[in-house]
Amino acid sequence: MPERVRAAMVRQAINHRGQEFSTVYADCVRILKEAFGTTNDLFVVSGSGTAAMEAAVGNFGRGKKIACLVNGKFGERLFKIAQRYGTATEIASPWGTPLDLGRLEEALAGGAEMVTLVHNETSAGIKNPARKVGTLCRKYDALFVMDGITSVGGDEVSADEWGADVVVAGSQKCLAAPAGLSAISVSAKAWERMTEPRPFYLDLAAYRKSATGKLMETPYTPAVPLFLALREACLILAEEGLSARIARHRRLADAVRAAAGAWGVSLFPKIDADHAYSNTATAFSYPAGVDDSAFRGTIKKMGIEIAGGQDHLKGRIFRIGTMGAIGAPEVLATLAAVQYALRKHGFVPKGDGVMAAAEVLG
Amino acid sequence: MPERVRAAMVRQAINHRGQEFSTVYADCVRILKEAFGTTNDLFVVSGSGTAAMEAAVGNFGRGKKIACLVNGKFGERLFKIAQRYGTATEIASPWGTPLDLGRLEEALAGGAEMVTLVHNETSAGIKNPARKVGTLCRKYDALFVMDGITSVGGDEVSADEWGADVVVAGSQKCLAAPAGLSAISVSAKAWERMTEPRPFYLDLAAYRKSATGKLMETPYTPAVPLFLALREACLILAEEGLSARIARHRRLADAVRAAAGAWGVSLFPKIDADHAYSNTATAFSYPAGVDDSAFRGTIKKMGIEIAGGQDHLKGRIFRIGTMGAIGAPEVLATLAAVQYALRKHGFVPKGDGVMAAAEVLG
Repeated sequence: MPERVRAAMVRQAINHRGQEFSTVYADCVRILKEAFGTTNDLFVVSGSGTAAMEAAVGNFGRGKKIACLVNGKFGERLFKIAQRYGTATEIASPWGTPLDLGRLEEALAGGAEMVTLVHNETSAGIKNPARKVGTLCRKYDALFVMDGITSVGGDEVSADEWGADVVVAGSQKCLAAPAGLSAISVSAKAWERMTEPRPFYLDLAAYRKSATGKLMETPYTPAVPLFLALREACLILAEEGLSARIARHRRLADAVRAAAGAWGVSLFPKIDADHAYSNTATAFSYPAGVDDSAFRGTIKKMGIEIAGGQDHLKGRIFRIGTMGAIGAPEVLATLAAVQYALRKHGFVPKGDGVMAAAEVLG
Repeated sequence: MPERVRAAMVRQAINHRGQEFSTVYADCVRILKEAFGTTNDLFVVSGSGTAAMEAAVGNFGRGKKIACLVNGKFGERLFKIAQRYGTATEIASPWGTPLDLGRLEEALAGGAEMVTLVHNETSAGIKNPARKVGTLCRKYDALFVMDGITSVGGDEVSADEWGADVVVAGSQKCLAAPAGLSAISVSAKAWERMTEPRPFYLDLAAYRKSATGKLMETPYTPAVPLFLALREACLILAEEGLSARIARHRRLADAVRAAAGAWGVSLFPKIDADHAYSNTATAFSYPAGVDDSAFRGTIKKMGIEIAGGQDHLKGRIFRIGTMGAIGAPEVLATLAAVQYALRKHGFVPKGDGVMAAAEVLG
């Protein structure tokens, strides 16, 4: 997190029912709408991305037939949430492989009223075809719920163009604010189809009511310091410019992928014309013989943390994040440490990945 | 908030799946258990007090007969939450007047399986008889859900002794940490009676699982800076000592009540042998003719904010909080400003409330 963002939290508490908080909240919403690519209503929730995922399903999906596209951990989480509220069908592909849009169309033809999709599935490093899913949802008049937690603010998101009715984002990913807040946008079509009973803390009707009075407020006490930090992070985003920010994320991911190519280490996802490598998290398959915990331990000793795999991918992949307030220095240092650790733990890189990345970044 | 608490949020993000976060979380839990008066499991939720209230009802009350004791806004909120999960009965008294424990016993005899109570109802400045409610719940083997949001850490709470199965607290009240976190304790009896389906983000089974591994974690990304601040606030509580802290809160409230007596301004609550004036928020009835917004405007111009009434009490009462990291200076300044504003807006105080308060504090 940038120093400005962290420093925004130091000040004394402000009244969350006053003019100043209202301005802070409005600043966040205005800038986040641009990052979402939406003119829909948008709210900030005091809770992590999972809270916003539940708000999406819990406000609009109770009792509905829900088709859940799953090719990673977060798609699976949306499926689990959908099971608590409606009749959920999992349209699963192995993690990191293309989604089956043919099966999605069958589910829609069979009456699915809501579709859930993770736009950028960081658990497997794959970017899913949100625009195509949106087109199918429009064709069959279903609500399209999209998890943009790790793409909003770091990759292109065009919620309105794609027809994404309910979109969620997290504060601590590409927005580079502290963890603990999430944002959610709601289309007119979604508002018309609200369901009951809804969760209470996450009841978006209450959020809408509190946001549209004389002051822009939240229904329940918000996490004030986190709002102050998120506002600062949004101002930084606006100063950088959204398209420049997206280009930066893409260039950093390009650099990481160039290193993979130079080393001869495979990227984990299997992509096709509809799917792409994530620009905010790159997943590598471990070369045979490299031990996950020894490898990441070596890197950690140099003061750098990279992620392993989650659930059944533990030990099979490692992941390098390129999201938020990072640039060439962080990426070069990380790749140098990875290159060293690959060698140390028994894999001989074909070529110099660090220099290949520098070619992209220079 | 003390400077130490605010400063704890400035540092760079830490990994919420690492040893350090685990220690931070464990420190919070250890100290909060003392403040709750419990040896039960206790979790910290990234969400405001309302989230923890919903967790209490949503994890243990689905489909149950729930009797809700209501004599203020927060009791009403618990009733509204209970309506979304079970068959809720409101046992209402006018705000700020004694609860009807006779009707509670009838409801329990009639099969109520859960009872909700707000221990310290700040909307009306009244402290409710938690011990007596607990005794009745034990007699009829019902689950006792207690909102201790504005009493934990500032007034005596003895969850285990009272038989309070599920107790919630908020970070920004007597604990003097930032808003945005809440805490919830769960008895063995409550665990045995978990209901389904539960909310997802607030599913306490997931909280329990994540807290009992090798590291103490939360199921979903926590609001890390707020945990760092809460830990600091808990350490301050431990340094002051819980009983000294409670005595401080009581003395400050005594001082405010002494001022009311000297002025001849009535306290709003009607108390009896079972009920008491709140030690963390004192509610005053407006003397005839004093206009709420002009009165509080005068005080605000002096840099001091006091609360008005909520909902139907708007314009009828004003409230002075004495919770968290405050002492004699804040109380004396507030009372001086109130005394000045009473005079300015048409009420002639019988005597000098500021000096009466100083007698208590000196």
